[in-house]
Amino acid sequence: MPDTDKGRILLSVTGFDPRRWYELFAVRRPVVLEPEGAADPTIHYAVVWKQRPNVLATLPNLKAIFSIGAGVDHLFADPGLPDVPIVRVVADNLTQYMTEYVVWRVLDHHRQGALYRSQQKRKVWHEAPQPAADAVSVGIMGLGELGRAAATALLALGFHVNGWSRSGTRMDGVTTFRGQDGLDGFLAATDILVVILPLTPATRGIIDHRLLTKLRRDNPLGGAVLINAGRGGLQKDADILRALDDGTLKEASLDVFETEPLPEPSPLWGHERVFVTPHAAATSDAAHLAGPMLDQMDACDRGEPLRHLVDREAGY
Amino acid sequence: MPDTDKGRILLSVTGFDPRRWYELFAVRRPVVLEPEGAADPTIHYAVVWKQRPNVLATLPNLKAIFSIGAGVDHLFADPGLPDVPIVRVVADNLTQYMTEYVVWRVLDHHRQGALYRSQQKRKVWHEAPQPAADAVSVGIMGLGELGRAAATALLALGFHVNGWSRSGTRMDGVTTFRGQDGLDGFLAATDILVVILPLTPATRGIIDHRLLTKLRRDNPLGGAVLINAGRGGLQKDADILRALDDGTLKEASLDVFETEPLPEPSPLWGHERVFVTPHAAATSDAAHLAGPMLDQMDACDRGEPLRHLVDREAGY
Repeated sequence: MPDTDKGRILLSVTGFDPRRWYELFAVRRPVVLEPEGAADPTIHYAVVWKQRPNVLATLPNLKAIFSIGAGVDHLFADPGLPDVPIVRVVADNLTQYMTEYVVWRVLDHHRQGALYRSQQKRKVWHEAPQPAADAVSVGIMGLGELGRAAATALLALGFHVNGWSRSGTRMDGVTTFRGQDGLDGFLAATDILVVILPLTPATRGIIDHRLLTKLRRDNPLGGAVLINAGRGGLQKDADILRALDDGTLKEASLDVFETEPLPEPSPLWGHERVFVTPHAAATSDAAHLAGPMLDQMDACDRGEPLRHLVDREAGY
Repeated sequence: MPDTDKGRILLSVTGFDPRRWYELFAVRRPVVLEPEGAADPTIHYAVVWKQRPNVLATLPNLKAIFSIGAGVDHLFADPGLPDVPIVRVVADNLTQYMTEYVVWRVLDHHRQGALYRSQQKRKVWHEAPQPAADAVSVGIMGLGELGRAAATALLALGFHVNGWSRSGTRMDGVTTFRGQDGLDGFLAATDILVVILPLTPATRGIIDHRLLTKLRRDNPLGGAVLINAGRGGLQKDADILRALDDGTLKEASLDVFETEPLPEPSPLWGHERVFVTPHAAATSDAAHLAGPMLDQMDACDRGEPLRHLVDREAGY
C-alpha cells in the first residue's frame, strides 16, 4: 500500500498508455493521472513524457520533474515549464538496450545484411569481400552515458571508434573531436555515423545533406552509413533521402523521424537501403525505471540531493 | 624473391580461385599449383582446401599439411591422406569474423529484425515488447577458440551464455555442460542455439529434429532460434525445415548447408524465417593467414615444433 502521507505524483504523458507506470508508482506513493491534478497542492513530483503544456505550472508545491525517456527535449516544448529540478532517466537497462541497437545496426551494415538478404531472395550464392572491423571507423556523435557504452562495445568488436561531443569528452581507445571546430575532421574520418545526441536548439536539424557529404564515402564498405538512434528532430528526413539517392549515403538505419509515427506517405518506409524501426532502440521500460524514480523521490523528501539532473542551460 | 633452397609448397584447393594464396606464398617460398607437383620430392609442405584425393599421398618428402579454413573435416575425405602433421588455421582475424557473425545474428533474432523488416514493408509503426538480454540464454555448442571468443562478446552484451563441449571446457561467466550426458540439460536452458562445432563422425548430423525439440521454446523471444556457423554436415536441412514449420523453431540463421552451394530447389532459400549466407561467416583471408603459415614452415625447417596441430583421433 502507498504511504498516503507522502507527496503525490502527477503522471502526465501523451502518446502511450501510462497504465503500467501508474500501477508501479501506486504501490509506493499516491498517484494522480492527468487531466486530474491541476493546481493540486498535495502533488510534489511530476513524471512526464510530452506533457500537455501549462499543466505543471499550476502545481504550487512541485519539487521535481522526472522525464520518462533519455531525452528531455519534449519537456522544453512546454512554455509553462516550472523552475524546479528536472531528473533524466539513467538506467542500466536503457543503456543496455541502446548499446544492443547500435551494435546490431553497425554489424548489419558492416556484414552486408542488406546485400545478403537481397541475394537470398534471388537464390544467389556469392560471398562478398568482407572488410575487417579494424578497417572500418564508426563515429559516434554524443558521448554521454549512451554514447560511451556503445563505444565500449564497438571497440571490443575491433572497430575504430571516433567520438564527437560539444565538450570534447575524452575516452580511452576513442579518437575524440570537439565542438564545431572538430566536426569536419570527425566526419572525414567516419564511415558509419551513429547519432545519439540530445536534441537542443544547437543540434536541431544538424544531420542535413551538407553534413552527410563530409562523411568518408571512399571506404571498404563502399559508402557512408547513417544510424540515428537519438531524436528525429536532429535530422532532416528529406536530406537523408536525397543523400541516399545521390550516392552521399550507402545505407541508413533510422529509429527516429522528424514526425513520429513516420507518416505513411514518407518514401523512407519503402526505401530499399533504409531500415526503419518505430522509435524502439531503447525502450523506457517501466518495470526497470519506476523503482529508481521512487527511490529518488524518497531521497528528496529526506532532503538528499537529486541525481542525474538536467542542465537547463545546455538543454540536456 | 623466394628462397629457392627452401622446400616447395603444393597449393591444392577446389571451389575457389587460389591466385591470392599463390601470390602471397610465392614472395617467400617456391609454390607449385595442383594439378602440377604430383610425386615431386622437392615439395615439403601442402596447403589445402578440399584437395583432390590421393594427390598428397604421392609426395615422398611431405613434412606437414596446412588447412585453409578453421575446419579440417574436408581433409579427412581423402583416402590417401598421408600420416604427417596437420596444422589448423588459428588466426585472430578468423576468430574476429566469426565473433562478428555470431553477435550480429544473435542480436538480429533478439532485437526482432525479421518482425521489424516485415512491419516496414507494410508501413506498420508498432513497438514490440523487447526482452532484456539477461532474460535470454544463448547456448554455444563448441567451446574452442571460436566458441570462447563469441561467448566473451555475448557476455559483454548482457546475455546469459551456456556452453557445451565434448570435454566440458570451463569458462568464467558461462554455464558449461559436458558430453552426451550434459546435452539435454544444455538444450533445455537454451533459447538461441549457436553451433560452432567441428565436423567429426561423432557430430555429423547432430542438429536434427529430435535435438531441436529439446530447446527452450517457452521463452521471452517467443520461440527457439538456431544459428549454424559451423559446418553443413552437422545439420539435417530437412529437419530444420520441419522444425520451423511445426513450431519447434521460431527462426534460423544458416551460414552452412548439407550441400554447398545451397541447391536452388531448397525451400530454405525462400523461407521467410530463415536467413541464408553463403558460408561467409568467417572468411579465410589469405592476406592474414599466409604469413603465419610461412612462419610455421620456416620454424619446422629449423626443427622447431609445429603449433595448432590437429588431433587425428578426435578429428579436429
